[in-house]
Amino acid sequence: MNGKSPHVSFMRQAIQLSRESLRTNAGGPFGAVIVKNGDVIAHGSNCVTSTNDPTAHAEIIAIRAACQALGTFHLQGCAIYASCEPCPMCLAAIYWARIEKIYYANTRRDASHIGFDDGVFYEELTKPRSQRTLPMEQVLRDEALSVFQEWQNKEDRVPY
Amino acid sequence: MNGKSPHVSFMRQAIQLSRESLRTNAGGPFGAVIVKNGDVIAHGSNCVTSTNDPTAHAEIIAIRAACQALGTFHLQGCAIYASCEPCPMCLAAIYWARIEKIYYANTRRDASHIGFDDGVFYEELTKPRSQRTLPMEQVLRDEALSVFQEWQNKEDRVPY
Repeated sequence: MNGKSPHVSFMRQAIQLSRESLRTNAGGPFGAVIVKNGDVIAHGSNCVTSTNDPTAHAEIIAIRAACQALGTFHLQGCAIYASCEPCPMCLAAIYWARIEKIYYANTRRDASHIGFDDGVFYEELTKPRSQRTLPMEQVLRDEALSVFQEWQNKEDRVPY
Repeated sequence: MNGKSPHVSFMRQAIQLSRESLRTNAGGPFGAVIVKNGDVIAHGSNCVTSTNDPTAHAEIIAIRAACQALGTFHLQGCAIYASCEPCPMCLAAIYWARIEKIYYANTRRDASHIGFDDGVFYEELTKPRSQRTLPMEQVLRDEALSVFQEWQNKEDRVPY
């Protein structure tokens, strides 16, 4: 890859964020930037342990910041550059945000090798509920379903 | 199930939160509470559309609030009651938070029936990268890997 490629520049910013997160003890070594029309509109770095927030992954922080910057809850037309392949939480968040392309550097396997559970969680999510290590039990579906029906009948609902 | 079961009481709180989220136009019809030692320690309801935050699902909000309440980044010993089966983003967040049991009411299929993409995203996450609708491209792994190696050599790293 050409050193002057914009992809290289954006990914180097994400990698630099991952390095800073590590060196400042903010959290794990992960960074991300979100790009729209050739500009970085938001960035994030992992701060799980310093902020007591298990959801404070680089991609989640960057998505939230990008949406605040744009005043929208969708990020159509955006790409994300993540210093590591997104974990399933972040990958699903990227889908919810309607980001259109993911660039990544390290893989989930690289993350597993340094002690992070990304790979384990991908395996868990692909299993049927009954085969997962984390038990799930259904209660009160009928009562909850009535709220879903109310949503369906709501004329001014805002889908996302 | 006995109407006096604590599970019923906790799930009714989650369902009531889902109803409020819908009726106040905060977001989609989803609510969640987190319970530790028989007490509700945090709650959340969907506010994606009202706060321009695609990650503001009930479970994510509840997890963040529970961790703030406890001053930790793990929720061992906790259960979550969600008015709908968690989407893959929230399910992975529950794993990261080390929550030990999930109670849910509506299913991902119920959510799909009223227009939410939970089921679609579960399918996407189980596919190999190359077969997903959202394209992914790897760049600069070597540079990113050097940060992972620095993490592995860091004596005061805080794993999570």
